[in-house]
Amino acid sequence: MTTKQFIQALEEEFQQQQYGQSPVELYEPIRYLMSLGGKRLRPLMTLMSTALFTDEWQKAIKPATAVEVFHNFTLMHDDIMDKAPLRRGKPTVHAKWNDNTAILSGDVMLVQAYELMLFVEDKNLKKALKRFNRTAAEVCEGQQFDMNFETRENVTEEEYIEMIRLKTSVLLGFALELGGIIGGASDKTCQTLYDLGINIGLGFQLKDDVLDVYGDPVKFGKQVGGDIISNKKTYMLIEALSSATGETKAQLEHWLSLKDFDPAEKVNAVRGIYDQLGIRQLAEAKINEYFEKAFDLLDSLKVEAERKAELRAFANILIDREV
Amino acid sequence: MTTKQFIQALEEEFQQQQYGQSPVELYEPIRYLMSLGGKRLRPLMTLMSTALFTDEWQKAIKPATAVEVFHNFTLMHDDIMDKAPLRRGKPTVHAKWNDNTAILSGDVMLVQAYELMLFVEDKNLKKALKRFNRTAAEVCEGQQFDMNFETRENVTEEEYIEMIRLKTSVLLGFALELGGIIGGASDKTCQTLYDLGINIGLGFQLKDDVLDVYGDPVKFGKQVGGDIISNKKTYMLIEALSSATGETKAQLEHWLSLKDFDPAEKVNAVRGIYDQLGIRQLAEAKINEYFEKAFDLLDSLKVEAERKAELRAFANILIDREV
Repeated sequence: MTTKQFIQALEEEFQQQQYGQSPVELYEPIRYLMSLGGKRLRPLMTLMSTALFTDEWQKAIKPATAVEVFHNFTLMHDDIMDKAPLRRGKPTVHAKWNDNTAILSGDVMLVQAYELMLFVEDKNLKKALKRFNRTAAEVCEGQQFDMNFETRENVTEEEYIEMIRLKTSVLLGFALELGGIIGGASDKTCQTLYDLGINIGLGFQLKDDVLDVYGDPVKFGKQVGGDIISNKKTYMLIEALSSATGETKAQLEHWLSLKDFDPAEKVNAVRGIYDQLGIRQLAEAKINEYFEKAFDLLDSLKVEAERKAELRAFANILIDREV
Repeated sequence: MTTKQFIQALEEEFQQQQYGQSPVELYEPIRYLMSLGGKRLRPLMTLMSTALFTDEWQKAIKPATAVEVFHNFTLMHDDIMDKAPLRRGKPTVHAKWNDNTAILSGDVMLVQAYELMLFVEDKNLKKALKRFNRTAAEVCEGQQFDMNFETRENVTEEEYIEMIRLKTSVLLGFALELGGIIGGASDKTCQTLYDLGINIGLGFQLKDDVLDVYGDPVKFGKQVGGDIISNKKTYMLIEALSSATGETKAQLEHWLSLKDFDPAEKVNAVRGIYDQLGIRQLAEAKINEYFEKAFDLLDSLKVEAERKAELRAFANILIDREV
């Protein structure tokens, strides 16, 4: 099986999913958000993981879409909380309709994710749902920590990593683990798959932080420098604050304290400070650490090498991505 | 088993449920809302229904609390959408904390409801979850219709009944059906239990509408006349609008069109029009119709008469309730 075939199978499935009919105000925002696309990384990971253990990877298609529907549910609700105007370059649901619609459509989307999870075979259903519930709760915990950190004076590196582990990585971990459960892998192997997903997720999110500062504005698709403009306490800012001294530290704190500034000027200035402090290299070393750990875990899986090729190639694409 | 024992078992279970620990901002609102109490009608119905078929009604306790946690999740989110300041006489979650907290705590509460559903025995789990998913989606649909009706010129009696069936009754239907599933009842019997719950629910909601207009302010616990003040298109207003003629119709439309009014005066005036038109009697006849249908369904259940006594007494309490 090739990644292309997995993607095609997923897109066919997404295209035929209706979510519900009436009232149209409830279901149209779901179809809208799901139609905006995105990289479909999570369901792809579930299919790749299933295919490690069985040729019947098709039985994982609907549960894989549950992971993507759940992910999009969190985006719909997070965008309300973050007052985000755009998602994948289009108006967010709460901006296009209103907050109430985004709350309620999101709710029914979460229910829909659970309905898609029921396509896991009966013998594995309870296990899959227990892990899904835990993951879903942790994703909410991560979002709450993320919001808490906005108003906190200091956030440590450990706290930041734990936040992104919850908000982003556990769902990638679950996506792989779910494939293992569906493919009939042992509990130990499922745990390895989960850890593999966690490490990919941590590397993936830190890469996102780096791209937010150093990405090519044309390729990146969202505003470069958004994290700097909003003083978001990312790994990069946390490291810069802890390693800067003297004049450099004063300059950084000056930019953080300014209420009124030219966005491009602030982005350039803070990026310059990061350059001076070698923050990009530090972040990239950390990203490589997580991805290396992920490859070690992939190597440790007792599965024929050729079956692992797709997942290995996929991880390499995530490392090298510029968008 | 007596109702008192069921209630005690439920309260013990609710008291020991923690929902989650960290971050406290996420889980404290859940404990707060659940601690405000309420009548616990839905989990009580699940236990009573289970006890129709088995003496091992305790195995239904956790799944029964899933129904209550789900119900409270809908209250937390509905209160944001309705901008309600009070719930059970205390500040609503979004008023005490903020909208974001109420969105996210509500989300994790829905996940918690699914986790409690996993205490349904494996052999019945998929069936119970399929029905729970359908019910949950319908409750959201009912809330969306309810919001749509606020800005609609006309709502028919049929549309109103369908809205309250979705928003309120299906969860009461599911509460009884779930007891049947857990108790090992046949599919046909589970359907009868569901229909029984639907009819109790419709009677219950119409009773609520009557109490909102004619309830004793001291006993009722919430503002009497709230529906009249907000022009809510309840069964009573829909019937009044369709049966009023001439001067009475003009008066009713006058009160509905006023932007600036004394609330007590408007409530008295519209209540007076309802009196004139015999709307209360009409509503009570309809309520009796639904409860009679419910009693017929209860009679039709092939279960020893003494096992039905608690559920029958419970329905009678709902009919006669003044709060």
